[in-house]
Amino acid sequence: MIKNNANFQVKLQEIFDSQHDLYKQGNVADYIPALAEVPANKMGVCVATIDGKVFGAGSCTTPFSIQSISKIFGLVMAMNRKGESLWQRVNMEPSGQPFNSIIQLEWEKGIPRNPVINAGAVLIADVLTSNFSASKLAFLSFMRKLASDDSIHIDKHVYKSELSHGSRNAALGYLMKSFGNIEAEIPDVLSQYFTQCSVAMSCNQLASSLLFLANKGIDPKSNEVICSPRDSHRVNAILSTSGMYDQSGEFAFSVGLPAKSGVGGGVIAIVPGYGVICSWSPPLNRFGNSVVGVNLVEAIAEELGLSIYH
Amino acid sequence: MIKNNANFQVKLQEIFDSQHDLYKQGNVADYIPALAEVPANKMGVCVATIDGKVFGAGSCTTPFSIQSISKIFGLVMAMNRKGESLWQRVNMEPSGQPFNSIIQLEWEKGIPRNPVINAGAVLIADVLTSNFSASKLAFLSFMRKLASDDSIHIDKHVYKSELSHGSRNAALGYLMKSFGNIEAEIPDVLSQYFTQCSVAMSCNQLASSLLFLANKGIDPKSNEVICSPRDSHRVNAILSTSGMYDQSGEFAFSVGLPAKSGVGGGVIAIVPGYGVICSWSPPLNRFGNSVVGVNLVEAIAEELGLSIYH
Amino acid sequence: MIKNNANFQVKLQEIFDSQHDLYKQGNVADYIPALAEVPANKMGVCVATIDGKVFGAGSCTTPFSIQSISKIFGLVMAMNRKGESLWQRVNMEPSGQPFNSIIQLEWEKGIPRNPVINAGAVLIADVLTSNFSASKLAFLSFMRKLASDDSIHIDKHVYKSELSHGSRNAALGYLMKSFGNIEAEIPDVLSQYFTQCSVAMSCNQLASSLLFLANKGIDPKSNEVICSPRDSHRVNAILSTSGMYDQSGEFAFSVGLPAKSGVGGGVIAIVPGYGVICSWSPPLNRFGNSVVGVNLVEAIAEELGLSIYH
Amino acid sequence: MIKNNANFQVKLQEIFDSQHDLYKQGNVADYIPALAEVPANKMGVCVATIDGKVFGAGSCTTPFSIQSISKIFGLVMAMNRKGESLWQRVNMEPSGQPFNSIIQLEWEKGIPRNPVINAGAVLIADVLTSNFSASKLAFLSFMRKLASDDSIHIDKHVYKSELSHGSRNAALGYLMKSFGNIEAEIPDVLSQYFTQCSVAMSCNQLASSLLFLANKGIDPKSNEVICSPRDSHRVNAILSTSGMYDQSGEFAFSVGLPAKSGVGGGVIAIVPGYGVICSWSPPLNRFGNSVVGVNLVEAIAEELGLSIYH
Repeated sequence: MIKNNANFQVKLQEIFDSQHDLYKQGNVADYIPALAEVPANKMGVCVATIDGKVFGAGSCTTPFSIQSISKIFGLVMAMNRKGESLWQRVNMEPSGQPFNSIIQLEWEKGIPRNPVINAGAVLIADVLTSNFSASKLAFLSFMRKLASDDSIHIDKHVYKSELSHGSRNAALGYLMKSFGNIEAEIPDVLSQYFTQCSVAMSCNQLASSLLFLANKGIDPKSNEVICSPRDSHRVNAILSTSGMYDQSGEFAFSVGLPAKSGVGGGVIAIVPGYGVICSWSPPLNRFGNSVVGVNLVEAIAEELGLSIYH
Repeated sequence: MIKNNANFQVKLQEIFDSQHDLYKQGNVADYIPALAEVPANKMGVCVATIDGKVFGAGSCTTPFSIQSISKIFGLVMAMNRKGESLWQRVNMEPSGQPFNSIIQLEWEKGIPRNPVINAGAVLIADVLTSNFSASKLAFLSFMRKLASDDSIHIDKHVYKSELSHGSRNAALGYLMKSFGNIEAEIPDVLSQYFTQCSVAMSCNQLASSLLFLANKGIDPKSNEVICSPRDSHRVNAILSTSGMYDQSGEFAFSVGLPAKSGVGGGVIAIVPGYGVICSWSPPLNRFGNSVVGVNLVEAIAEELGLSIYH
Repeated sequence: MIKNNANFQVKLQEIFDSQHDLYKQGNVADYIPALAEVPANKMGVCVATIDGKVFGAGSCTTPFSIQSISKIFGLVMAMNRKGESLWQRVNMEPSGQPFNSIIQLEWEKGIPRNPVINAGAVLIADVLTSNFSASKLAFLSFMRKLASDDSIHIDKHVYKSELSHGSRNAALGYLMKSFGNIEAEIPDVLSQYFTQCSVAMSCNQLASSLLFLANKGIDPKSNEVICSPRDSHRVNAILSTSGMYDQSGEFAFSVGLPAKSGVGGGVIAIVPGYGVICSWSPPLNRFGNSVVGVNLVEAIAEELGLSIYH
Repeated sequence: MIKNNANFQVKLQEIFDSQHDLYKQGNVADYIPALAEVPANKMGVCVATIDGKVFGAGSCTTPFSIQSISKIFGLVMAMNRKGESLWQRVNMEPSGQPFNSIIQLEWEKGIPRNPVINAGAVLIADVLTSNFSASKLAFLSFMRKLASDDSIHIDKHVYKSELSHGSRNAALGYLMKSFGNIEAEIPDVLSQYFTQCSVAMSCNQLASSLLFLANKGIDPKSNEVICSPRDSHRVNAILSTSGMYDQSGEFAFSVGLPAKSGVGGGVIAIVPGYGVICSWSPPLNRFGNSVVGVNLVEAIAEELGLSIYH
């Protein structure tokens, strides 16, 4: 825990500086051209607490493509809208497979293993598309409210790049549709999905937006109920078992916090009852997680003695 | 948390009584004849805390076959003996597959996904067989020390039954051996593995034995270091993502504690910094977890407000 | 072999009559509504020889949806157009999997196992789409030439039904595209593929069209070279190992001829050096092959002593 | 077909000589040490016809380890002993998988796809072990009778090497046993299986032994019925779809004969109604088939115009 704010700010900067050069060990995502254009040495970190403190280092106010971190927000919207019936269409088990596995989806007859692998997130995008009159706008509004910042926007360059390289997600979508587990048309579902992935936010904005998951569903900034305590618990449970792709177990081993990464280089970690850590550095390891992003979260969690497994 | 001991004992008995008839919803394991002989309506529960309290209800002092709960103890022994090198032979990721999947083991070239699926536990049995001069005795001694009870023993009837119905575990073992990931002879490894599974212990004994995992590796009864804080953290992380077979995610969803079940009907849950819950009821659900055992842990965790995801 | 034409015509009718009621053992394909509308008791058979004889029974001049039998013709067109380079994009091995398996396609990184499973046929449709200026018309022209019948047409009702139930084939297509193994746009490829499947032809027309495969690539009616002897050999090889879905081995066992079936109820069998058998009856067995269609081919092959394995 | 014996003998020698140096393109099997000891440049070929001609070149009378070619003989013995009931325990479909795939065996619940992949051959070994009083001797006697040569023997050095490197086959066996599809004890089954694989025979002996499959089940040398015409047909069907491991389709493509290879470097091909080709050269391609062995059979089949697909 943080005992002295000024001391911690110094310590955070030290951790940040000591990790900086590690970005050379990873590779910036190139599966869509727009992501490959981001400079490899950009880097930022933020720690926000439910009692209102915010600590940052590096480019912590620079927006980046949140990519799969958007899956958390889509999931919360879908849970709020559909209630328990959502879990008839998507499971909550770890996948033990790459994030975009189509083999497992076939085995399980079109029911994704969980909402934070790609198939699950495409299904969530279908839920939003089919249940909101203007689902993309609704998603953007939700993000702006959570971050208390109306300037948050879609990066259209990234969005178009996603759309023109989305064959595998289309395959996942059509396979689920062949099992009757998708309601809307696949092009509409993919448009929703890629819109969500293309939101640009900074470390500070993301950390602030996710405080409700550290606070039993209540945004501590506004005291607004974002979701039920039960659903906040569930999201943290899913992030703990499945949030870091096929490195989720190793992350639980070494860090021990509910977390989610995106191929844009962002990593967020929830500390129940305490706050949120968000780091950003584009180069990824072989699992698709930010090399420096993971290291920063680990170093901060260790410094502050934060883990749910002790 | 428990505020009044007497009140909690009454409450625990109430929870126990309200769950009792649910045992009819499951089926006693019949994959080995010896397990099928246990009466379906036996049932017990225990809550032990690191500050020395013990609460029990039902047949909480009746020994039962601990089966896969033994994987925890074998893992701790192997970690202590081998250190970091252990993790070159077994991974720490959730499996997303049935506990005895041979398909995944083939994909991953003989490296089990984690030490608490069957393949992983057979590998751990190989580590013990290959690194202890009298490995079965060493395991039994470890169990007796942790439970502070020298009467703990192997149920030979169960052991023989396991041995004569162990073809699938033999297949897992030989497949790993074909990849060069088993050192000892398979019959010896299986003998070790089935010995561990055949230990008979009560809810009270199991809960007491596992307190070190709620206490950063230190047994609070003796202040003895059983494993490092780091390894205690790791075991809890593995149990959280993988301890309840292919229901691990759902258990995290609804309960939110590191846990492990066995096909003998036992369930243990670790509450870091607090204590251990152990329940027992032989009838299993389709995932191989005790129906009542899971329900009891869930009700107690909810009553006491225990979850790592809030 | 046929020794007396009149006697064989009588025998053919006897075989036909004896099989008729077996159609009740199967189920008409219902995966697309248009196929489900075909009366279950329709039935026909034709034997055509390379020396110009044609024998028929039942509704042998009634057009039906040729469905997957079209894969043969698409393959021949693609082989003629692309030569050896075709085999870099599709393999020639039996699949050992259901005809529409997406799992195998993922394993083999977007290279279909052979051109007569669905993934392979979608790839062939891409080859035609990408290499012919008017690929649908080219396909229809090819069919009309082979059958010497300009009235052959696309059943538009079936085509539309296919198109609106084509999610799984779309999934196969997008998955191959994600591996870079599809050149055209998927909607265009699927339109080509479903056009081919929706061609309506009779037993007599199909048998006549395929005589070139029994005659080293030369159409015996016109003496025109349809494909090289080498490619004729190859097509027969593929049909022998893979033409009857996941019943290909059993069909080789009991009949022993290169063959292909379609879910419209058609079955064709090539007798190298001799002729072609074509049968039709809509109800299918669990492998997707016509119950009566398979039986008719088997009975005729046995009557005439035709098998490549004796 | 052979028109002039002397000319063909010259031609055979020419083909042999032209292929010789290709052995350098492959690698001698090293999965068991005993096979790795065979000189890479050994090479022989034999053509035997049902009308009694025998043509040979190179080391065609040198015995080599027949390995998987033994699967044919075991299958014939099992078919003769068990009749139709055999096919309830093993399927007859191509596998589309590596010869030793354990994944497919798990999917298909312990029923091997066919009798010439390893799992199927281990099952056949179980049938022999369980149904013959002295099954190893019975197998050897069968081989000696077919080759008309009582000197045929087991290579004990190879046998021991197999036995000490048989973990994967043990895994296949135990997995089938766990599904209830193996009757005898696995060590006994493996001993039978490795005995069969370890028989040493020459090209001339193998070709002579298999003439019954080219002659509807009757050994043309003795006029003895070795199996029914139906079973001879079936064996040829299985060899056509599955005999050359995961290169079976390509072999059908380029050669077009029922064939079987072994990792000892032998290849046999059946020409129904005509005879048998047997070649031998230890270095293998990536599918486990002899590089030169396959080429020799292809060149001879082309020279003589032998293929079942024309």
